[in-house]
Parts: sequence; C-alpha cells; structure tokens
Amino acid sequence: MLAKFFAPESVAVVGASRNPRKVGYQIVLNLLKSGFKGRIYPVNPNADEILGLKAYPSVSSIPEPVDLAVIAVPAPAVPGVIEDCGAHGVKAAIVISAGFREVGNVELEKRVVETARRYGMRVMGPNCVGVYVPKTGLNTTFLSMERMGFPSHGPIAFISQSGAFGVAVLDWASMRGVGISKFVSLGNKADLDESDVLLYLAEDEDTRVVTMYIEGVEKGRGERFVKALREVTPRKPVVALKSGRSEAGARAIASHTGSLAGSDAVYDAVFKQTGVVRAMGMEDLFDMALALAFQPPASGRRVAILTVGGGSGVMATDACSDLGLKVPRLSHETEEKLRRVLLPIASPHNPVDVTGSATDQHLVDALEILLRSGEVDAVIWIPYFQVPGITEGLVKEFVARYREVVSDTGRAIPVVGAVTGGDYTWRLAREAERLGIPMYPSVERAAKAVWALYRYGSWLRRLGVYESYVEGFLRKGVAPG
Amino acid sequence: MLAKFFAPESVAVVGASRNPRKVGYQIVLNLLKSGFKGRIYPVNPNADEILGLKAYPSVSSIPEPVDLAVIAVPAPAVPGVIEDCGAHGVKAAIVISAGFREVGNVELEKRVVETARRYGMRVMGPNCVGVYVPKTGLNTTFLSMERMGFPSHGPIAFISQSGAFGVAVLDWASMRGVGISKFVSLGNKADLDESDVLLYLAEDEDTRVVTMYIEGVEKGRGERFVKALREVTPRKPVVALKSGRSEAGARAIASHTGSLAGSDAVYDAVFKQTGVVRAMGMEDLFDMALALAFQPPASGRRVAILTVGGGSGVMATDACSDLGLKVPRLSHETEEKLRRVLLPIASPHNPVDVTGSATDQHLVDALEILLRSGEVDAVIWIPYFQVPGITEGLVKEFVARYREVVSDTGRAIPVVGAVTGGDYTWRLAREAERLGIPMYPSVERAAKAVWALYRYGSWLRRLGVYESYVEGFLRKGVAPG
Repeated sequence: MLAKFFAPESVAVVGASRNPRKVGYQIVLNLLKSGFKGRIYPVNPNADEILGLKAYPSVSSIPEPVDLAVIAVPAPAVPGVIEDCGAHGVKAAIVISAGFREVGNVELEKRVVETARRYGMRVMGPNCVGVYVPKTGLNTTFLSMERMGFPSHGPIAFISQSGAFGVAVLDWASMRGVGISKFVSLGNKADLDESDVLLYLAEDEDTRVVTMYIEGVEKGRGERFVKALREVTPRKPVVALKSGRSEAGARAIASHTGSLAGSDAVYDAVFKQTGVVRAMGMEDLFDMALALAFQPPASGRRVAILTVGGGSGVMATDACSDLGLKVPRLSHETEEKLRRVLLPIASPHNPVDVTGSATDQHLVDALEILLRSGEVDAVIWIPYFQVPGITEGLVKEFVARYREVVSDTGRAIPVVGAVTGGDYTWRLAREAERLGIPMYPSVERAAKAVWALYRYGSWLRRLGVYESYVEGFLRKGVAPG
Repeated sequence: MLAKFFAPESVAVVGASRNPRKVGYQIVLNLLKSGFKGRIYPVNPNADEILGLKAYPSVSSIPEPVDLAVIAVPAPAVPGVIEDCGAHGVKAAIVISAGFREVGNVELEKRVVETARRYGMRVMGPNCVGVYVPKTGLNTTFLSMERMGFPSHGPIAFISQSGAFGVAVLDWASMRGVGISKFVSLGNKADLDESDVLLYLAEDEDTRVVTMYIEGVEKGRGERFVKALREVTPRKPVVALKSGRSEAGARAIASHTGSLAGSDAVYDAVFKQTGVVRAMGMEDLFDMALALAFQPPASGRRVAILTVGGGSGVMATDACSDLGLKVPRLSHETEEKLRRVLLPIASPHNPVDVTGSATDQHLVDALEILLRSGEVDAVIWIPYFQVPGITEGLVKEFVARYREVVSDTGRAIPVVGAVTGGDYTWRLAREAERLGIPMYPSVERAAKAVWALYRYGSWLRRLGVYESYVEGFLRKGVAPG
C-alpha cells in the first residue's frame, strides 16, 4: 500500500502555482528538476499550464488514474481536496499544508483522516515536506534548489518527524556524499506514522539501513512501534535519534510538535530491547549509518588500530576504551609477523604504528596480518595521506587486499578509517568511501562507528542470525551502489 | 629568548639539499613558499646553491649572524652541528632529525642538550617538525604543499607533542578556515617543553587562545607545568587535549613517545586547578578554541536557543542539558516581547522557535530581546539559510545588531551558531565566522563551545578577573584578524 507514496507512476500537485514564491510552484519545479520519471498533473482551477505542464481544475478532472496526491492548499480546503481525491480513486495523499493540530486545529485534522478512511486512502502529514526518492526523482519538498542540494541514490533511508531538520539533513547529505534510498517527513502523523514506514522499509530492496529522527511516538501507538522495530532490526539496522532526552528538551517538544516526549528511559529501554542503535546527534546518526550500510557488523568488541601517526593511535585507543571497546594486545606470533613486514622504528603492538616513514606496502601488509590473526573483530585504519611514503594508489591497494582476504577467509571483519587533513586528504578519503570504507574526520567518530557495528552485531548474535545476515551482506558486495 | 624560535630574522637550514625527496630540500622550499620574510641560509658542504639560494658549507661559514638553526642531518652528526652553531653564536636550534631517545639513543640526545647548554643555546626537539608562523612565513615543516594546506594567520596557537598529528591539524585548519598564530611541534622535548612555550605564548600579542595536544609531561617537570598554566590562564584560555586517558591508551603512549602518560586523574585535577579547558578530541579542541578566540566568556550557565527549526531547538536543549548548561524558561515579560515581534505560529518559549516561515527581521529582533533580557548568559542561534524567508543579508544584519546591543548595554553575552546544510548554507556560515560568530555543523558541537565559554568564564570569575578580561576582550574587537 505504501508503494503509492514511494513509487507512484503519477502525481497530482494540488495547489500547484505559477507564482515562484508559492509552495505549489516549488513542488512542481522540484519534481521536474529531480527528473521524476512518472506523470505530473498540476491542479489549479485558475491555470491552464504550470511550468510547461497542462494543469487541471481538480483531481477528479484528470483523465487518468492518479497514484499520489500532494496537497498544498490552505488548511481549511484540505478535507474537500481529500474528498475529491477519494472520488477519483487516489489511495495516497501527502498533505504539505500546515495549520492543523500543531496550531490547535485538532478537529480539522480529524476530518482529513476520517474523509481519507472512507475511501481507503492513506495520508502522510499534514504539516510535512513529504518524500524524496532520488532513484525515481520523486521529490515533493518545496525548498529551492538554489539554496540546497539533494543527495543521490544510496543505501540509507531517513525518516524525520521534523520537516525543516529533515530537509537540512538532505542538504548536508548531498555535500557529504551520503546516498539516500528514501526520505520521509512525517509531520503531524495524523494517519501514517513511523511504524508504517518502518514496515515498508523492512521490505525495501534499496534500503540497507534505516535512520530516524523522532520526538515522540503518539499515545496508544507504542506497542505498534515496538512491533515494527522488532520486524525490521533482524533484517536491517535501525539507527534512531530521539530528542527530548532532557527535561528541558521534553518541554521544548511540547511546544514544537505538541507530542508528548514520554520518559526518555522508556525509549531507551525500547531501543535496547529491539536492537535499535541509538544516536546522540545528527553527525552521530549518519556516522553510524554509513558504517552499518557499507561494512559488515562486528562479531565482537576487539579493535585493531592501524595508524601512520602515533598520536592518533593513542587517541583512537582512548576513544575505543571510552565506548567499552577493547584494543587488545596482540599475540607474540602476530606481533612477530608484523615486525617482519614493518620498519624497525614501527610499533607492532596494538595500536599498530607504521610511522610517518611508512609506505603503502606497510599498511596493506599489516592489514592482512591483522585480518587473518583471528585476534580482532574490527579495524580502524588511520592513513596520513600527507606523508611522503604514502601514494595516491594506497586506497585502491588497501581495498583490494581487504576484499581478497575477506573472500579468502570468509571472515567479515569490518574496517573504517579516520583522517585529519584538507582537500588532498579528503579526495583520497572519498575514494575509499566510494569503495566501501567509511572515513571519518576524527578517531573518536571512527570509534563510534565501530561501536555501532559492534552493537548491531551483538543484536544479531543474540537473535542467532548473525551468520545469515553477514552472508547476505557479503553477497550484496561490500560497496553497494 | 624564545623569540629566536618564533620571530627569527635569519634561519640556517643545516642539511639543506637539492634532492626533492630529502627533508632538507622540503624545509627550504616550504620557507620560500610560505614567504618567509627573513634571510635563509642553506647549509650543505657539497652544494653552492639550493633552490636559488647561496649555500654554505657550515653554519660558522655564514658571514652574518644566524638567529635560528634548523637541523636535518643524520642523528649522529647533530652534536657536531650544535657545536658549530654554538661557536657561531646561534642561540636557538630546532632539531628535526629523528633517531634519539625515541629509538633508545638516550646518550646521543643528552650530548645534544649538553653541547647546547655550554653555549647558552635552547633546543627544540629532536624528532619534531618545528614551527609554523603564518604571519612571518616561518615554516620549518617538511611536508609537501602539494599534499597539504597551511592555515593563514589567526588568533589560535597550537602546541603539539606529536609532529604528524600537528601537521595534519594544520592541513585540516587550512581547509576549515581556522587561523593560527603559532604552531609548535615539541618532539622529544629534550630541552624546550610545553611549559617554556606556554610562558612565551602568555606574552604573545598575536595569540588569544592556546591549544595543545600532549601525551605526557616529563618526569620532574610537573610543577613547572602547573606554574606555567597558572601564568597563562588568567590572561588567555588554554584548551588541552591529553591522550592516554584509558589504560590501553597509556600503554600505547609508552610505545609511541616512550613518555609516561601518568595517571589521567592527575592531569584532570591539574587542568581543573589551573583553569584549563579539557578537550576530548581534535574537533572538540578546535570547536572550543574558536569560541574562546572570537566570543567573550560566559558569565553563567543560562543559554537561550534561537532557532528556525523546532527539531534543532529540541536537540540543542538536550545537548545543553547533557553538559550541565541550563535552557531556562524566560520571564513572562520577555516572552511577551518576543510574541510581539514574532509570527503567531512561533514559540516565544526557550528554545525560541521562529519557525521556517520566519524572516531575517524575526531572528534579529528576537536576538536583541534575548540579549537585553538579563535572563541568559549565552545564545545559540540556529538559522536555516535554506528557508525562503531568510535572505543572504541575514548574517550582516544579525552581527550588526549583536554588536550594537553589546556596545549599548556593555554586557558581553557570547553567541555561537549551528547549521545543518550544504554549500550555500556554509558559504553564509563562513561569512558569520569572518564576522566573529563561530558556526558549528551540529547543535551538540555548538553546545560544547558554549560550555567552554562557561567553563572559562567561571575560572575568570573565581580569580576575580572576569570583568577585566572581558573589557580587554571587547577592546580588541569581537572579530580579531
């Protein structure tokens, strides 16, 4: 059923406008600019044509079936539009318009839902920015592309209760190079809520990780939420950013969305019981999601650190320890193997410090020894692309060796990286990301990413599905599109 | 005395080379490329000219006085070079060469120091990358500018025990737009250490904030360190990143620099007793330093949040609470004032949510009301530059009103910002930074910056010098070069 929201073949934009300052103009423009592959029907009784598309006076006057109606008319007019949509057989409506429960118009919002129910129609919103699906160009948001970027297709789905924050995150993701499968802004959640979307995403082939920003689950819907989470987390990771942790934050939620934040301890317990990885901020949310999307979960908490800079090795060790991860001593045997391939001034102890005099070869050989040792469950590598012995070819070589060893041993040990540097460094770090190794701008963030891989791995092991998950993960390849 | 290290009029590079793969070539090249304003004397017995500069067979053969010798010859040759420098009256030497205590050559290192002492010469290093002073183009580092950037002049000094990490940070700072007054890499600290440099920076007019990365203070030098910190912190903030917090991290330090990490609790206590603001990672270090460099310290822990997005307001509130900052309710009077200037759908409660329909005017007027209220000690503003009502002119207007109110009331209430977004957003955020308002990529990091302003403000108040510090700060202007 939710397919109509995410993969419609035709979209009617009700309230479409020729005035560039209107939301109804921007929605049509964004659909066009995003290259939406389906048909677009602008609906406006006072226009024949909008942005080169034939306009219709009402949804019911459109001569063909409409999969999705995007509604951006003043709030009082919304129930009438829903009625018209229902009569035309529309089964999915996104109500962009604001002016409902969030400003006290509870009755009006109820009427929207009741009308929709009569026709078996589902409603997203009201007071939302809708959906963005880069793969098909479906983009019902209304912010100008002159002021923001939209990310390209990728394995991460993002559900946001807050529209403004959601759109800002899309903008950030486009700059950061984070690919999105589906973006959903839930708004007032009068009908459709996070549980519906979670269940849809559980089945969605394009989504490997689900991220969400929520302020609160509506009263009486807690059980559904838990059930939905239990449905998803054995199949794909869910990373959640739940705000209103503090008393002052909960108070702020009351005046923002009017929803009850609920006790944070309850959410925390729900997340733990359902295997949700909890994020503490926006950077944290996507740092962890990237790792979970591109790297296999870790089967334990033992981390090897492989660094070109001794200081970074020490800091990474601290960061791991802070999170309850271990940076274990390596066996004498493994240290000897490392010693044989590294420079005499290098340190074969964990953190393994190849030093600033190292070459590509040292990093790649050390990686292989660590992966094969059986003594670690994850690797954080810290290449300093600035030093003279490291070449631009390192990334390719490193990833090639990684894949070779994983396919040879069948052991899926995750690797993430951390770099400190400027444009040259990030050009190479981005290359590593394109090849499936997430790179972070600090060792602390890399350690947090490993923690997420460990957390999710523990959950899968608890459920007894770790092996089958990893098998499926490896089958899809370490660097999915 | 340390002036010879940071503001020499002439520099001899001993071990200068015509071979681009040699450190001694890169140092001369970096000095030239950084536009060093003094004289450069390459020293190499087998060359007449290096990179267009006349070369000398030894330091003593240079016909003029030499302020600073930068030494990059094999370790065993260093004592002889020091001798030659001493005979020529050189009073400052940076020993870039490695191969001393860090690989067990304790005696050789001792000989270097003893030789220098005989001539009243100070030594930086060995095993370091030296100094970088953008203002005068003094750059003794040896990494290629094709692989890294060097930051421009600014108010932040950075002392690093780790050379590789220090240089990587410079590279990052150049991309991030963080301006540096002096960078120092301490290396083995055979003679010169953090305490010497701290005392120098206390007097340095170009430095407003001192940042440092340390792994450990040498045995027997703890008292000097505490004394030096006590000397600096009443005059300018010190932000320290001390690694080796964890047991595993301390072990890693032992194999990295061979220095004893010491108990972390001891360092933590020292930092608390001397008013040092402690950072937990590299991003944290500079996030806090930026705030302390450009904004006055906070006189209390009450934070106002001024946001265009409700969700971000909630998250910022959580982040403040996590750090022990307060997001207090505003008085009825202040809320009424806000209500009068904001949209009906806006929330005048703290976090003040002007909503996505706001205009520049709403943000600027709300700022003034908050600054004049007497109810808050700091402001976090969260502009969403993506929304249609906010214009490119906002930043200028916002900063102008801020300065106006500060100069009118005489109350220095710090303001920092947080944005989530892409290139357009960051172009405007960078404009705000150039005008003195630090901007962070997440509300959590903005909250941490405010925490640093609060921590340092508390320290100054404890010393009874808060007012005089702020007066001096305001005299220098809110956005120093």
